[in-house]
Amino acid sequence: MAESPIQSGLRGVVAGTTSLSTVGAGGDNLRYRGYDVEDLAQHAVFEETAYLLLYGELPTRSELDAFEKRLRGMRALPTPLRDVLERIPGDAHPMDVLRTGCSTLGTLYPEQSFAEQDAAAERLLASLPSMLGYWYRFTRFNERIDTATPDATIAGQVLRLLTGREPSDEHRRFMEASLTLYAEHEFNASTFTARVIAGTLSDLYSCVTGAIGALRGPLHGGANEAAMALIEQFREPAEAVAAVRAMLARKEKVMGFGHAVYKHRDPRNDVFKQWSHQLAANAADGYLYPVSEAIEQLMRDEKRLFSNADFYCASAYHFAGIETPLFTPLFAVARVSGWCAHIKEQRADNKLIRPAADYIGIDHRSFVPIDKR
Amino acid sequence: MAESPIQSGLRGVVAGTTSLSTVGAGGDNLRYRGYDVEDLAQHAVFEETAYLLLYGELPTRSELDAFEKRLRGMRALPTPLRDVLERIPGDAHPMDVLRTGCSTLGTLYPEQSFAEQDAAAERLLASLPSMLGYWYRFTRFNERIDTATPDATIAGQVLRLLTGREPSDEHRRFMEASLTLYAEHEFNASTFTARVIAGTLSDLYSCVTGAIGALRGPLHGGANEAAMALIEQFREPAEAVAAVRAMLARKEKVMGFGHAVYKHRDPRNDVFKQWSHQLAANAADGYLYPVSEAIEQLMRDEKRLFSNADFYCASAYHFAGIETPLFTPLFAVARVSGWCAHIKEQRADNKLIRPAADYIGIDHRSFVPIDKR
Ligand SMILES: CC(C)(COP(=O)(O)OP(=O)(O)OC[C@H]1O[C@@H](n2cnc3c(N)ncnc32)[C@H](O)[C@@H]1OP(=O)(O)O)[C@@H](O)C(=O)NCCC(=O)NCCS
Ligand SMILES: CC(C)(COP(=O)(O)OP(=O)(O)OC[C@H]1O[C@@H](n2cnc3c(N)ncnc32)[C@H](O)[C@@H]1OP(=O)(O)O)[C@@H](O)C(=O)NCCC(=O)NCCS
Repeated sequence: MAESPIQSGLRGVVAGTTSLSTVGAGGDNLRYRGYDVEDLAQHAVFEETAYLLLYGELPTRSELDAFEKRLRGMRALPTPLRDVLERIPGDAHPMDVLRTGCSTLGTLYPEQSFAEQDAAAERLLASLPSMLGYWYRFTRFNERIDTATPDATIAGQVLRLLTGREPSDEHRRFMEASLTLYAEHEFNASTFTARVIAGTLSDLYSCVTGAIGALRGPLHGGANEAAMALIEQFREPAEAVAAVRAMLARKEKVMGFGHAVYKHRDPRNDVFKQWSHQLAANAADGYLYPVSEAIEQLMRDEKRLFSNADFYCASAYHFAGIETPLFTPLFAVARVSGWCAHIKEQRADNKLIRPAADYIGIDHRSFVPIDKR
Repeated sequence: MAESPIQSGLRGVVAGTTSLSTVGAGGDNLRYRGYDVEDLAQHAVFEETAYLLLYGELPTRSELDAFEKRLRGMRALPTPLRDVLERIPGDAHPMDVLRTGCSTLGTLYPEQSFAEQDAAAERLLASLPSMLGYWYRFTRFNERIDTATPDATIAGQVLRLLTGREPSDEHRRFMEASLTLYAEHEFNASTFTARVIAGTLSDLYSCVTGAIGALRGPLHGGANEAAMALIEQFREPAEAVAAVRAMLARKEKVMGFGHAVYKHRDPRNDVFKQWSHQLAANAADGYLYPVSEAIEQLMRDEKRLFSNADFYCASAYHFAGIETPLFTPLFAVARVSGWCAHIKEQRADNKLIRPAADYIGIDHRSFVPIDKR
């Protein structure tokens, strides 16, 4: 069907107000509550960004210490949740694990009133890495791990849980940056999902569960996993160029390129690319980074499309020792901070989000009893 | 904050096209693929409506038989799902149970490709009543029931599971009608949630899980439960009138009234009201029905607001022997047919749904290192 304006996915239609971030202001900036994301990714731990999003300002040292301490205190998972995670097959998609775990958590620690929203948000921030790590290590290695790791921050926690090793300083710093870059992105599809659910005045766990389901899709968070599936097929830049050229000829989408809002550049990409380059050197990578660069160049030349946050993120996560199916879940571990901040914002000035539809179906017709059909 | 056009919850903004239903065409009609909902509610079983929504036409006798048989064949729940349901506390909200059950089902029978979407939709139609009944009877009565009931249709299945009794013919006919009335409603908040998630090309279980979370909210499906909480407080119409008048004076919302789209009348209400009246007589109700009528009259006189589908539904479900917390889950058991039909429609002509936001936050500011804050 040809694209009509109303089939345009609400692109450019203002669906509400926000104080949380600006995407593409001035063409290519990303700012969280006014701060450039590059600065946050370089100078702050992820918890500073999460605090900024949830509470409005960057934390002081003592606020940050208290926040990190509360989060560490919620890393252990309740027994019924561990039981549930053990029932999820090892070949399930890890995003389905997070979706189910988040929903289960909402039955065990229900948000009884909106006065409990900050506590629920913090519980989710602390628990998503644990759920992912618990299920992953149980189904892959038959281990029942203690998810209350000693790491100071979530970046360390999640690296240890997913790799089973003490994280190196470099990997931990990269993970802080990646979580910061993924934390918030205005009215992207998963955040908008969370706000539509919040608009009915449902509970926070319902909002986040829905958002995880939206992030899972390959047109959204699922793109980092899909980008890895692409690049890891090739050993040589020339081979990649030929294959991607053939994809474009077949009008296939190349995951990790293009963006619904940015028109020239995704500012997160520069940071991810730099990390991918740095980690590639230390991982003694012979091909993933050069293959990625060749694809980036080709997409720019042939389609004028730039790589988005999900493209170099893929190789960088790989170099940090993360298995490919865990890439999108890491995006969720970060974005839950933005989702919860948006849920709070939606609630503070709520209106049910209920658009209209254009009816293109059959007009009125008379009912026909079953025996006359 | 004062309401601005952009804070209007996308009311009236066309977010896409649909062939599934028209809400409020001609002021107050509801039609599913062209058929008046009153006709379907009076003359058809719920499965005929579900089939119409999912496959485009009312089924012939043999199509309906085959469809019902497939659904009956999927009423039993897999062991891991029963294990998960047993871990959900008895005081959890039953909508959280359906949300978690639906998400879990998606890990056990994942939708591997969109070619499996009809099978996944049918599995959900058959399984939601079973999940609800299994958890309810386990946590309330410590029974581990067999959810593969012999009832011909979902209406009978769900009544038997939730009441523990052979359903009367009258209750079963009412349940067919209520499920039919709740099956579909264009771009309401939960369906829109499902479409936003579908727009990322995520799987069907993610879409439905998110939709359940949206339906849970008191501004949406949660209204039938909230309406019951209101009316059951009163024994006398006069008492109800005084109390509701006081609520209006305090600017509180009265659940079960008003509508985002209908302006004069919710056509579903007439059918529910008639059923409530009829079932009240047989239930020897002394007060719920007259109390409801008095509130309806007051709301019309004082606020020019009409009762929506959720108002008389509350007393009618009560008369049919359903516990109040199960009202909204019954809405979900019905609406899953509409959700799945919308997911199919979204996928058939997909575009990522990603609106814009109006930024009202702090402009650019410079990062301040933590020790200088
Ligand atoms: C992100 C995305 C959904 C936003 O796009 P959008 O605003 O909906 O716009 P469209 O998908 O309609 O794309 C516009 C045009 O660019 C093309 N295009 C966009 N992204 C493309 C890609 N990654 N590969 C190839 N072509 C692409 C489209 O085919 C379309 O071409 P056409 O006009 O000839 O039909 C889209 O770029 C995409 O699918 N990218 C791949 C998935 C991805 O990386 N997602 C993560 C985003 S952070
Ligand atoms: C369904 C609903 C969300 C749609 O409303 P909407 O399009 O978002 O419009 P609003 O909520 O802004 O209502 C418009 C006005 O009517 C009033 N109003 C609407 N529904 C009301 C109700 N149920 N009780 C009292 N006042 C109501 C609002 O307070 C508002 O008054 P104001 O202009 O003086 O501020 C709303 O009617 C409602 O909350 N109803 C109760 C919940 C319910 O029954 N939901 C099930 C719907 S099937």
